Amino acid sequence: MAKIQPTADHLVVEPVSEEMTVSGIIIPDTATKEKPQKGKVIAVGPGRMGEDNNRIPIEVKEGDTILFKEWGGTKVKLDGKDLMIFREEDVLAILK
Amino acid sequence: MAKIQPTADHLVVEPVSEEMTVSGIIIPDTATKEKPQKGKVIAVGPGRMGEDNNRIPIEVKEGDTILFKEWGGTKVKLDGKDLMIFREEDVLAILK
Amino acid sequence: MAKIQPTADHLVVEPVSEEMTVSGIIIPDTATKEKPQKGKVIAVGPGRMGEDNNRIPIEVKEGDTILFKEWGGTKVKLDGKDLMIFREEDVLAILK
Amino acid sequence: MAKIQPTADHLVVEPVSEEMTVSGIIIPDTATKEKPQKGKVIAVGPGRMGEDNNRIPIEVKEGDTILFKEWGGTKVKLDGKDLMIFREEDVLAILK
Amino acid sequence: MAKIQPTADHLVVEPVSEEMTVSGIIIPDTATKEKPQKGKVIAVGPGRMGEDNNRIPIEVKEGDTILFKEWGGTKVKLDGKDLMIFREEDVLAILK
Amino acid sequence: MAKIQPTADHLVVEPVSEEMTVSGIIIPDTATKEKPQKGKVIAVGPGRMGEDNNRIPIEVKEGDTILFKEWGGTKVKLDGKDLMIFREEDVLAILK
Amino acid sequence: MAKIQPTADHLVVEPVSEEMTVSGIIIPDTATKEKPQKGKVIAVGPGRMGEDNNRIPIEVKEGDTILFKEWGGTKVKLDGKDLMIFREEDVLAILK
Repeated sequence: MAKIQPTADHLVVEPVSEEMTVSGIIIPDTATKEKPQKGKVIAVGPGRMGEDNNRIPIEVKEGDTILFKEWGGTKVKLDGKDLMIFREEDVLAILK
Repeated sequence: MAKIQPTADHLVVEPVSEEMTVSGIIIPDTATKEKPQKGKVIAVGPGRMGEDNNRIPIEVKEGDTILFKEWGGTKVKLDGKDLMIFREEDVLAILK
Repeated sequence: MAKIQPTADHLVVEPVSEEMTVSGIIIPDTATKEKPQKGKVIAVGPGRMGEDNNRIPIEVKEGDTILFKEWGGTKVKLDGKDLMIFREEDVLAILK
Repeated sequence: MAKIQPTADHLVVEPVSEEMTVSGIIIPDTATKEKPQKGKVIAVGPGRMGEDNNRIPIEVKEGDTILFKEWGGTKVKLDGKDLMIFREEDVLAILK
Repeated sequence: MAKIQPTADHLVVEPVSEEMTVSGIIIPDTATKEKPQKGKVIAVGPGRMGEDNNRIPIEVKEGDTILFKEWGGTKVKLDGKDLMIFREEDVLAILK
Repeated sequence: MAKIQPTADHLVVEPVSEEMTVSGIIIPDTATKEKPQKGKVIAVGPGRMGEDNNRIPIEVKEGDTILFKEWGGTKVKLDGKDLMIFREEDVLAILK
Repeated sequence: MAKIQPTADHLVVEPVSEEMTVSGIIIPDTATKEKPQKGKVIAVGPGRMGEDNNRIPIEVKEGDTILFKEWGGTKVKLDGKDLMIFREEDVLAILK
């Protein structure tokens, strides 16, 4: 299904609904400005280009389940699936 | 048709209408601030000049079909075609 | 309980209630904009990636009791515990 | 007519009216914030000085016809001609 | 009393009341936005980490009496004492 | 008259009135935010200090007639003359 | 009187009243946002620390009479004298 190749430090992520929670993490309905969301990494960019013309590698990889900040991304639809594209800096943690 | 040569990290892109969708991607009408758009890369700049006087190469190339953020660009008309010029940082992904 | 691996310079911290104060520090109810909070470090990211493609190590480590700025973080729930994820720059001091 | 020598990464440009369009490009009356304008480069600065005390060369050269963002420049009059001075970063593309 | 170890370029400072003035400096009640305050340095962080993974050393040291900008800090209470934590950049001068 | 030595990348400039126009340049009364002004360079600073502890040399020199942005400067009076002090980045061009 | 040692790129300056004008400079009552002020440098910091862990030297020295921007500083009183502390970047020129 790798029909979409993110550029630079972009990720393509499939949001995971709360019912699919694997490791018992439940994100509470908080009053904070930033609401984290859970998702599965579908595709990873090559990393942004540094000033020294080397790409800065991305920490997460395809298949990782991650927590990410909801507000930074862009929604797209691929083969009927709702996906999000956002930058690596919006990733908070990898769930294992 | 290469009558227009973008400078630095600018791209010239021909927006692709939804009817021309190749790989089944449909961009939904979302409520997010940023609406991605699909387009075909017509011309690519040499990359922006880094502090070390080397150009930072651009990841996308002529002919690529890309997703890009709509709000960053400038509209121009070339030989009757509606084109957009924007910076590489507005590109989200390459569609394959 | 290491089911959550923070990315880059993120920390996962369990806030410590005032009743659990160890070393006699009590954070007063001040009129300042920033209210510090006490917490125990549960997990530490690998550090953010510098321009030279090396990770910048994080000063605090798992198990440290820290003072941190409350306003920068994101709340998550893991195995029934209320945790916070924030960047290293929001840490003020380590309590010993 | 080289009586004006731009400094750093400034360019002196003579705006070209739509009637003088050479290559069939017509800039439409769009609703976007940024309206590109066409012009002929009259004079080019030596480039801005980088941190390493080397000048970063400018991509466009005297005589080039360019598309540029209208809002960044300063209007001056030289020998009866209306000219604009702006920074290289306001250039979008070279027309050939 | 070194139970608190500031991180990065943070300092822990005990504000000094005007009655304890040592060297005859009196900070007048001015109309300026920034009111400087006098304090004694209790603890000093290791310095912030530079891009080259070296810590940038801090100029003031434990025991120094300093003038600092009041508005940047965070108030904490340690063993009954009112202390402040702020970054080195908020220090104006060392009093000798 | 070199009684004033600008620091860093500051210039001391004597504004030139329109009646003294040498090369036929007349700056029109435009509706743009930035109004350029003409002046003669009286004194030039040594350049701002770069991160590598070398001064970045200034492009204009004493005696040059320049176009500069009016809004960035500070007015001073020296030996009865009205002068302006501003940074090199406010210079647009050298008139020859 | 060197009881105050400014840190980093701070200066301690004693403002000079207009009546004490040495070289005939009178700063007019202008309508500009920035009003320059004249002063004598009492003490100079070691310079701010650059990313390479070297201090960037300060251009002015003790005893210099300088023009500085009024709005950036902090007022303090030392041995009955009204002084100001501000950063080197607020200095416009040295008067000789």
